[in-house]
Amino acid sequence: MFSPTDYRFMAQALRLAEKGLYSTSPNPRVGCVLVRDGQVVGTGWHERAGEAHAEINALAAAGPAARGALAYLTLEPCSHYGRTPPCADALVQAGVAKVITAMQDPNPLVAGRGCALLEEAGIEVKTGLMEAEAKALNIGFVSRMTRGRPWVRVKIAASLDGKTALNNGSSQWITSAAARRDGHRWRARSCAVMTGIGTVLADDPQLTVRHIHTSRQPMPVVVDRGLDIPLDAGLLRGAGELVFTAAASEGKIVALRDVGAHVILLPDSAGNVDLAAMMRRLADLEINEVLVEAGSGLNGGLIQADLVDEFVIYLAPCLIGNAARDMLKLPELSNLEDKRALKIHNVRAVGQDIRIIARGPDGMAT
Amino acid sequence: MFSPTDYRFMAQALRLAEKGLYSTSPNPRVGCVLVRDGQVVGTGWHERAGEAHAEINALAAAGPAARGALAYLTLEPCSHYGRTPPCADALVQAGVAKVITAMQDPNPLVAGRGCALLEEAGIEVKTGLMEAEAKALNIGFVSRMTRGRPWVRVKIAASLDGKTALNNGSSQWITSAAARRDGHRWRARSCAVMTGIGTVLADDPQLTVRHIHTSRQPMPVVVDRGLDIPLDAGLLRGAGELVFTAAASEGKIVALRDVGAHVILLPDSAGNVDLAAMMRRLADLEINEVLVEAGSGLNGGLIQADLVDEFVIYLAPCLIGNAARDMLKLPELSNLEDKRALKIHNVRAVGQDIRIIARGPDGMAT
Repeated sequence: MFSPTDYRFMAQALRLAEKGLYSTSPNPRVGCVLVRDGQVVGTGWHERAGEAHAEINALAAAGPAARGALAYLTLEPCSHYGRTPPCADALVQAGVAKVITAMQDPNPLVAGRGCALLEEAGIEVKTGLMEAEAKALNIGFVSRMTRGRPWVRVKIAASLDGKTALNNGSSQWITSAAARRDGHRWRARSCAVMTGIGTVLADDPQLTVRHIHTSRQPMPVVVDRGLDIPLDAGLLRGAGELVFTAAASEGKIVALRDVGAHVILLPDSAGNVDLAAMMRRLADLEINEVLVEAGSGLNGGLIQADLVDEFVIYLAPCLIGNAARDMLKLPELSNLEDKRALKIHNVRAVGQDIRIIARGPDGMAT
Repeated sequence: MFSPTDYRFMAQALRLAEKGLYSTSPNPRVGCVLVRDGQVVGTGWHERAGEAHAEINALAAAGPAARGALAYLTLEPCSHYGRTPPCADALVQAGVAKVITAMQDPNPLVAGRGCALLEEAGIEVKTGLMEAEAKALNIGFVSRMTRGRPWVRVKIAASLDGKTALNNGSSQWITSAAARRDGHRWRARSCAVMTGIGTVLADDPQLTVRHIHTSRQPMPVVVDRGLDIPLDAGLLRGAGELVFTAAASEGKIVALRDVGAHVILLPDSAGNVDLAAMMRRLADLEINEVLVEAGSGLNGGLIQADLVDEFVIYLAPCLIGNAARDMLKLPELSNLEDKRALKIHNVRAVGQDIRIIARGPDGMAT
């Protein structure tokens, strides 16, 4: 159905889309390549919400050469007025002859209407070229649009025997500098980085992207049942941080607002933070990908609530022994059949460490 | 120094040597390729102690064509009368013109004298072609000859969060059938498979090679401080099993002897089995490679005694949680700098599981 040339140009469009990995959120990462007579006449990618979409940038680059061109798009063009006018209209007006997209837009406001609009204008449209790659690039956007919650990625750094820290809390550093830098890449592509109050009190992390270049920082999110976060916590140094709590402590809520943080009261019936409701709320706030960097308590809570889509586990070539901290706090099992099954998605070396990516067996991504 | 052709023939000799992986112990695995005028005129490998060495088999296959040939040997030819006459003499008598060996024989009875004998007879000798591969193939034999103890390999099967069994002891099966079959390959190449009394009492393992074909079984070895092993334990069903103990319980020792087991009393000053002395004793008994399949107690004890050369860790794509058994029992650390450093040697997929091989940073092997 698709030719080798089609694959080549779509791969180029995907590489362009990937340039937006750290900047497009909450919008999807999209790339566009315009080809006429076998020659690329214009390329574009979407850099930042509110700015021009990939198609518009590519059409501007091509100018009159866009007429009669074939457009490769990593995502169906939008059909609605959002922060910018519909791209489908722009493609029609530019006289593009044919459009190949990698995937339908999962946004219910579009969901096939972009392509329908093109076809109504007499443009030939094909969909599904390198769809898996395109979905993977926007895994969080797809999750938010189709499931109403973000893609939740839990990062863990541990010794080969599965220990994340000594009992005295010491965890700096089990893994290598290369693994820590790799970890900052996951932060940079995330809309939010989440931790628990235990980690805040023990390590006082900033949760910012350092070590690599980015034009935006993810939003820090803290799960803090009792609202115990200190007003001078390192991750409160920016603005707009979210603190999810089950404690209606009015004075503390006001004090946190005064230092720029938003407190969201979301208790469940047991008096803990309702983690599923928290994820829905994060989706409402246009959070696509959440990176969880927490201790065994929050990690375990998210697993029990079936809210973890992906684990990124760095294993360092060292041994610590049983008298140290575990990755995951879960209720004791009496039957091994009740273990949580995953599927290995990817294994690679990162510096001297091993990085394992595992997903649920019914993982959304293809 | 060595030509591409040399590498090709030595690689062939190494593949021949590898045929003895499950059978040559306590002898090393050795292969030999005889080449004349660029043509292979004879090949041989050592199959079993007491039977002909690789060189003798190759010379027999070549017949008169061995005269003037170039011999590729994965190990220096022996110079002493052992179970068979010296191979160096046989090579001289056959009129071989040149010998290339991968490595010197680490056996102090040989250690260069085989090659010296050849040179004295006017044969050109070169050593060190693919030495690392040759040493890896005989890692246990080299260890026993140079360090006076076996190569000790600890096998662990765990969940991604580092748990080997539930607290109720249930561990069948965390890893997949493919990983278990791979585990039997490690058993088959080992001279001994070791476990602790805890595992014997909990799982009653046989420790035999099943699932794959082998002509010999490794010797079962149990570390049993209090001599608590039941006389009808599954691993006592053969003959010649070793039970290392710190308890001089005469009656039990006799009873165990009656069912075919040898009890070796080897207490340390704390009343435990002296693990270092045990390894020296195993080397005296011509044990090259030991596979340890034990719980966190014996695993931890061997680590503390600096007796582990290699870890083979199978990680299954599942999660069990903190309330389960750990890989290694070690004293609590107060400083992360005291963690045991390893180096990743190899990582691969085995079925749906991941297999990680790690060695000490000062690992003997190259």
